[in-house]
Amino acid sequence: MGIDLRSVVEAVRNLTTSDHASVVSITLCVTLLCASIVIGHLLEESPWINESITALLIGVGTGVMILLLSGGKSSHLFMFSEDLFFIYLLPPIIFNAGFQVKKKHFFRNFATIMMFGAIGTLVSFTIISLGAIAIFGKMDLGLVVGDYLAIGAIFAATDSVCTLQVLSQDETPLLYSLVFGEGVVNDATAVVLFNAIQDFDLSRINSAIALQLIGDFIYLFISSTALGVFLGLLSAYVIKKLYFGRHSTDREVAIMMLMAYLSYMSAELFYLSGILTVFFCGIVMSHYTWHNVTQNSRVTTKHTFATMSFVAETFIFLYVGMDALDIEKWRVVSDSPKTSIKVSAILLGLVLVGRAAFVFPLSILSNFNKSPHEKIGFKQQITIWWSGLMRGAVSMALAYNQFTKAGHTQVRGNAIMITSTITVVLFSTVVCGLITKPLVRFLMPSSKELSRSMSSEPGTPKSFAVPLLDSHCELFNGQASGAHGDQQPVVHPSSLRMLLTNPSRTIHYYWRKFDDAYMRPAFGGRGFVPYVPGSPTEPSVHEWPAEEAKD
Amino acid sequence: MGIDLRSVVEAVRNLTTSDHASVVSITLCVTLLCASIVIGHLLEESPWINESITALLIGVGTGVMILLLSGGKSSHLFMFSEDLFFIYLLPPIIFNAGFQVKKKHFFRNFATIMMFGAIGTLVSFTIISLGAIAIFGKMDLGLVVGDYLAIGAIFAATDSVCTLQVLSQDETPLLYSLVFGEGVVNDATAVVLFNAIQDFDLSRINSAIALQLIGDFIYLFISSTALGVFLGLLSAYVIKKLYFGRHSTDREVAIMMLMAYLSYMSAELFYLSGILTVFFCGIVMSHYTWHNVTQNSRVTTKHTFATMSFVAETFIFLYVGMDALDIEKWRVVSDSPKTSIKVSAILLGLVLVGRAAFVFPLSILSNFNKSPHEKIGFKQQITIWWSGLMRGAVSMALAYNQFTKAGHTQVRGNAIMITSTITVVLFSTVVCGLITKPLVRFLMPSSKELSRSMSSEPGTPKSFAVPLLDSHCELFNGQASGAHGDQQPVVHPSSLRMLLTNPSRTIHYYWRKFDDAYMRPAFGGRGFVPYVPGSPTEPSVHEWPAEEAKD
Repeated sequence: MGIDLRSVVEAVRNLTTSDHASVVSITLCVTLLCASIVIGHLLEESPWINESITALLIGVGTGVMILLLSGGKSSHLFMFSEDLFFIYLLPPIIFNAGFQVKKKHFFRNFATIMMFGAIGTLVSFTIISLGAIAIFGKMDLGLVVGDYLAIGAIFAATDSVCTLQVLSQDETPLLYSLVFGEGVVNDATAVVLFNAIQDFDLSRINSAIALQLIGDFIYLFISSTALGVFLGLLSAYVIKKLYFGRHSTDREVAIMMLMAYLSYMSAELFYLSGILTVFFCGIVMSHYTWHNVTQNSRVTTKHTFATMSFVAETFIFLYVGMDALDIEKWRVVSDSPKTSIKVSAILLGLVLVGRAAFVFPLSILSNFNKSPHEKIGFKQQITIWWSGLMRGAVSMALAYNQFTKAGHTQVRGNAIMITSTITVVLFSTVVCGLITKPLVRFLMPSSKELSRSMSSEPGTPKSFAVPLLDSHCELFNGQASGAHGDQQPVVHPSSLRMLLTNPSRTIHYYWRKFDDAYMRPAFGGRGFVPYVPGSPTEPSVHEWPAEEAKD
Repeated sequence: MGIDLRSVVEAVRNLTTSDHASVVSITLCVTLLCASIVIGHLLEESPWINESITALLIGVGTGVMILLLSGGKSSHLFMFSEDLFFIYLLPPIIFNAGFQVKKKHFFRNFATIMMFGAIGTLVSFTIISLGAIAIFGKMDLGLVVGDYLAIGAIFAATDSVCTLQVLSQDETPLLYSLVFGEGVVNDATAVVLFNAIQDFDLSRINSAIALQLIGDFIYLFISSTALGVFLGLLSAYVIKKLYFGRHSTDREVAIMMLMAYLSYMSAELFYLSGILTVFFCGIVMSHYTWHNVTQNSRVTTKHTFATMSFVAETFIFLYVGMDALDIEKWRVVSDSPKTSIKVSAILLGLVLVGRAAFVFPLSILSNFNKSPHEKIGFKQQITIWWSGLMRGAVSMALAYNQFTKAGHTQVRGNAIMITSTITVVLFSTVVCGLITKPLVRFLMPSSKELSRSMSSEPGTPKSFAVPLLDSHCELFNGQASGAHGDQQPVVHPSSLRMLLTNPSRTIHYYWRKFDDAYMRPAFGGRGFVPYVPGSPTEPSVHEWPAEEAKD
């Protein structure tokens, strides 16, 4: 009876106090998150340090403390978990990016972004893989061809999270949309690449298979985007139809958060790119759904999504920092420090070359047939090259998956690859993170004017806010620079001529027409005013989430 | 090489698409959550159905579908997880309850709440345990004394989540604070009870040990509360000191959310009652921290906490519903359906008796030495008795922990206890859930007037908003009912006489004085206006989160 009683009690105690080890980890993590936020805030005035680097350094410091406290046995609170990263931390970051992105800039540079994300990633992957085969093949690390291809994938994965932290959407909107958009497309490329390699033998590669790869990519891109757009529109429709007249902020916010997460998970369910889907779902939600809810819900969703993204980002950097002192692998590597340093340096070099190999040629290609003020200048090309060099949690997750079994390895070659990945991630994040801000300021002191001159509506950064006619007139008046004397309104411009002169603006014009005629009446959006009776298509005073002033 | 390549690809594919089974579960869960919210909204007008019951029924429906689709093999998406419940779902619900609770009502009824929560739970536990020994002992279920005590604990645990859904804070504030407050204290009692039983042998129980149990409970209650208050004040202090002059909504919201969660986890870390801690942290945060942040942060935190709590509640009901068709246990039980029904009925009876055994005597005790309009009437006693009958996820978690090993059992007695617990939970939630709303309306048609007459500030429900002097005068004018002709302001009332006449009001008066003189200057709170220069102690127009009108 004594034993029975004890086991009851033990069981209930375990229940109410839960597994104590996980309680300790969670408590420490939350404490460190708070510390990172507070210290990051205190260091905000510094021109060098940003919040990512603060979190990374606090993570490394905690790792050292744990290492000392445990007598050199362990530096881990927990192993790096891919599930945690891909299922819980990445979706809010990418969704928020879509929700707050300046849609105009993103869509105007759509072709360039696609080129950078798809072709650029392939170029980078190829160069890093070939470089690894050529250099590491001679170093007797015990790696096989599969490992070299994995290295290519690991270091071709641009870290969108770092990019978001270092580049400012307001100061350098063109660079932001190019580098970040590239990061989003990058994921889709990687999925197609690896799904394709799985199905085909490398020795059988030919032009038919290459074509099929391209077809697969296009299918994946279109279906992922369509799913995101569909779920975004569904959320807008549901909220518009169901909640009209009797809004509940809690329900609206819950539906928006759940639908956003659902878009990511359902894309993963259908083996699509969750990152692409959740990104486009965010764009659609900010264009339609956000305008269908109450003012309180707008404030709440805007700040909640931003906060969740902010916390997830901080957590990732903390986590990578804590995992950097993975003593088990460093110990395996410790008898050959020169090899380890050499490998890290070579990898960094390959990353630099791999990125340069597509940024400069593709920029020149993209400048072809563009007006001078829309071209990507050489200084901007350097910034794009530099600010996309950072490797982060995606690289770590891929490296752990490839070179360890459930986080552990004793094989020397694999341990070297893990420690080198950690070195590259820490080095690129800290060094690129420290240098990018000053570099952007140095290369583009007039970045604000420059970005404004690249926008087609110079005087109206909030161009979506103006009614259709204004925007329409301005759009074509600004373009017809020689016809300023002609005061006649351009009512029916020749669509073919327009399409040839400036395709993206023409598409934008027809999209606006279609949006106003069919989409907004069905799905709400700007001008949809809940509660207030009256003309539902009249422009309201509410702003885009991305263009509202931050408090 | 072929194999290596395939394993790379497989690994990367696993990574980007994650474990597909968990993706399926999460997608289905999020979809069901959305469905529950939308259907719950559509059924809102119904006087019977509420959102909990909708979610529960959707959960049961999904369980049936999974059962049919899997050919009778399984009804589970995943096993009921205590960690998920206690670490992730319960904290937001209890924190939000503290954050939105009407503090005045809670503290005015503090003594009664403590009596109900501590002594009441013990009475209920004793009666259910003794009843189980007396009745089930004769039924040859193969249970031992430890199991009977566990049954007492399982069915003495009032489900605060159900209570929050069924009772309305605005309509029946007294009942809400009594029943909900009891639920919060209930947890602390259970922890002490089981920690104590673990350390002592039941055969050696005597008055010294009983005293020590009481001492343990008082220690646990005070330390848990103190920790919650400390962390709440810390958050207020940090935000007031650090963010003054340069607020960032995202950071403020992040700090508030993280500190709230930290309070729960750190209580669990020190083996205290996380529920008590996070509840008091919520109260302190709504009293101080919430007033130190920007208007946008106020709107965001208020709605975010409410939304998180709402989603967690809906999820729990969905989860319990899905788990109800635990086919493995029902199959074990299926050869003795009579026994199973009998056990469920006996348990329901014991729950009814166990609760009646403390609600009515303790209410009479609490009415002693109170003015007539402050007494708990017989109709109210019935409502308190009835609305605390619901058993929910806490009972399920305890039952799974006691009667299964990692969710599985083949022992007949254990399977019967699991299925009976499920029956009691479903029956009590659905039946009590359906009947409580009409019952409250039937027993207390004038509940609004009644609750108002019990409040000391009849005309000013937002009494905290009025400056000190007004509230002070009103407080004592309302009390001195015979001295209405005397127009002299009561400047220095005899504190001893006041304490004897009405202790809670006196404590309230001195607390207000202390709060204004020492606490608010240090920790902010109502009247602290960020950004706006000027007198920081002047009352602002901002309302309490709990007393703001819902949109």
